[in-house]
Amino acid sequence: MKLEFVERYRDSLRDGLGQALRGDDATRQILRYHVGLETVKGKAADAMGKLLRPSLLLYVAEDLGAHLASALPAAIGLELIHNFSLIHDDIEDGDRQRRGRKTVWTLIGVPKAINAGDLMISLALQEADRTSADAVRCLLDAMRDLVDGQSMDLDFETRWVTPSEYRAMIQLKTGALFRCALELAGIIAEAEPDVIKRLASFGEELGMAFQIRDDLLGVWGDESDLGRPAGSDLRKRKKSYPLAGAYQQGSEDDRAFLERAMKSEPVVDADIEKILTLLERLAIRADGEERMKAHLQEAVKQVPYIPFSEDALSAFTALFEGLTAFMTPRAKAED
Amino acid sequence: MKLEFVERYRDSLRDGLGQALRGDDATRQILRYHVGLETVKGKAADAMGKLLRPSLLLYVAEDLGAHLASALPAAIGLELIHNFSLIHDDIEDGDRQRRGRKTVWTLIGVPKAINAGDLMISLALQEADRTSADAVRCLLDAMRDLVDGQSMDLDFETRWVTPSEYRAMIQLKTGALFRCALELAGIIAEAEPDVIKRLASFGEELGMAFQIRDDLLGVWGDESDLGRPAGSDLRKRKKSYPLAGAYQQGSEDDRAFLERAMKSEPVVDADIEKILTLLERLAIRADGEERMKAHLQEAVKQVPYIPFSEDALSAFTALFEGLTAFMTPRAKAED
Repeated sequence: MKLEFVERYRDSLRDGLGQALRGDDATRQILRYHVGLETVKGKAADAMGKLLRPSLLLYVAEDLGAHLASALPAAIGLELIHNFSLIHDDIEDGDRQRRGRKTVWTLIGVPKAINAGDLMISLALQEADRTSADAVRCLLDAMRDLVDGQSMDLDFETRWVTPSEYRAMIQLKTGALFRCALELAGIIAEAEPDVIKRLASFGEELGMAFQIRDDLLGVWGDESDLGRPAGSDLRKRKKSYPLAGAYQQGSEDDRAFLERAMKSEPVVDADIEKILTLLERLAIRADGEERMKAHLQEAVKQVPYIPFSEDALSAFTALFEGLTAFMTPRAKAED
Repeated sequence: MKLEFVERYRDSLRDGLGQALRGDDATRQILRYHVGLETVKGKAADAMGKLLRPSLLLYVAEDLGAHLASALPAAIGLELIHNFSLIHDDIEDGDRQRRGRKTVWTLIGVPKAINAGDLMISLALQEADRTSADAVRCLLDAMRDLVDGQSMDLDFETRWVTPSEYRAMIQLKTGALFRCALELAGIIAEAEPDVIKRLASFGEELGMAFQIRDDLLGVWGDESDLGRPAGSDLRKRKKSYPLAGAYQQGSEDDRAFLERAMKSEPVVDADIEKILTLLERLAIRADGEERMKAHLQEAVKQVPYIPFSEDALSAFTALFEGLTAFMTPRAKAED
C-alpha cells in the first residue's frame, strides 16, 4: 500500500528527524540509526518506517488550513514518542529484529538502550514544544496512555485475556498516539472544539483498526510484511487479537490445548501448526477482519463532522481500502 | 543532617506525590512503593527520601514571594523526574537495593520496571504542567541533561576517565536537576531574569557538591549512610570521583594496578583493600572534600545577587555546613 499523502511528507520528516536528533554523541547516533536515518556505522541510510502517524498529522493539519512549518515540530515529536516506545518495547519483549534491522538493545546493550529511549522522550517533547505548549500537553496524554497500554500488554504475557481486555489495551497502546496525531492536526489548524473531538475519535478508531491489522499480519503475514518471521507473535506467546479470540471462542478442549502449548517459550513448531489449524477452524482471521472493519466504520462516522477537502476524502477512502485489502501478497505493515 | 527547611514541606510533598501517583493499577502501585509512600504490599509506609530537590524548590520559591500552592506541582514533577531516573538507573546499574529497600526491577522484573519508569516521566511532566508550561520546559531541559549525563556515566564503565570528564558528567547527571529546582523557584516567584540565572548557577554548583559528597560516601561511608554496603561503588567499578582522582594522580604502577583490579566484576575483596590504601596514600578523600567545597564556594558567590531573606541565608549556611561536615558518624546521604 503506497499512499501519496504518506509519501508527500517524507523529505520534510527526514529533515526534521535529522534536526531533532543531531549531535555527535553515540546516544544520538543510535537514535538516528533506530529511526532509519543512518546505518549502524553512521552512514546515511534510507530505512525509515512508513511514518504514517506524522504524515497523517501533517496532511490533516494542512487540509484544515494550517501551515506545514507550524505543524512539523509536533509531527516530529509524535514520531519520536512512537519511536521511544519501540526502543523500550523491543527490550521489554526481547525482540532482536525490527523491520529487518537489528534492534537498539542488541547493538548497545540493555542499559544504554533504556537510556537512549529516555533521551528520545525528552527530545520528542522539546521538539513538540516548538509547535506549542498544547502540542506537548497532547503528547503527554498520549504517552501516558501508551505506557499504560504497554503495562496491560506486559501483564497479558502471564495470563489469558478476553477480546474486550485486548481492545482496552490497544485503545491505549496504539489508539492513543493515532488519536493524538489527528487531535494535534485539529489543534494546530485551530479547528472548532467539536471538530477536534471528532478528529480525536477518528484517529483512535483508525489506530485500533491498524493494530488489529498488524496483529493479523503477525500470525498470517509473511516475513516481508513485518520484517519479522511469520507466526512470530504466536511463537512469542503474544496475546494479540488472534489468541484472545481463539481462547474466547474455543471449546474447553481448545483452551486446555492453548494453555499447554503456551507454556513453553518459545512455543514449539508442532504446536504452532496446531494453533494455526485451530484459528482456521474458529474463523479467527475473518473475525479479526470484521473487527478491524468495524473500527474503520466508526472512524468513517466522524467524517461528516470534519471539514475535510474532497482530496482528503479520496485519500482516506484509499487508505481505508488499503487497510482492508491487507492480505494481498504485496501488503506491508507500516512499522 | 536534619534541616528544618527540608522537613517543613514533607507533608505537602507526601500528599502531592500520593495525588500524582494515585490509581489502582499495579504500575502506579509500584511507583508509590518506589517513592516510599507504600510498602510492597500497598500498605502506607514512611520511607521517602530526604526530598532535598523539591524542598529546595519550595523553600526558595516561597522565600522569593511565590505561593506554595502554585509551586507544589512543579516540585512534585521535579521529584518524579528524579525518581524515574533512579528506577531506570537501578536497572542499568544492576542495583538490587536503594536506601535499604528492594529496587523496582528486583520486584517486578526489568520489562515492567522500564515501563514503570516511563509512566513516571509522563506523570511528572503532567504534574509540572499544573504549575505552568515554563515549568515543563525547565524540566525537559533538565531531563535531557540528566539522561545525557547518564550516557556518559554508562560509557565510563568501560574506560578510565579524568576528573574533568567526571565533572562534566555530574554537571549533567546531578547538576541539571538541582539547577532546575532553583531555576523553577525563580520562575514561579517571577524573579528578574538575572536572578533566575544566578539561582540556576547556585543550584548547579550545589548539586555538583552534593554528588561529590555522595561519591565520597560511596567509598568511605558505612551502610547506614547510603543504604548500600560500604565500598560498594568500588566493588561495582563505578568511575566516581575517588577512582577518577586516583587514576589521574597515581603513578604508572598505580594505574596498572587499578586497571588490573577493575577487570573483575565484582572487584575482589583483597583488591578493595589495596584500592583503599592507594586512595589514602594519594589523599583522594581530602582532595574530594576540597573539590566539594570549591563547588559550594561557587554557589555562595551567587548569593549576593539573589534577594534571599535573612532566614534563607541562615538556612543555606546550615545546609552548607552540614554538607561539609559529612563524614561525621551520624551523616546520612540524601537519597
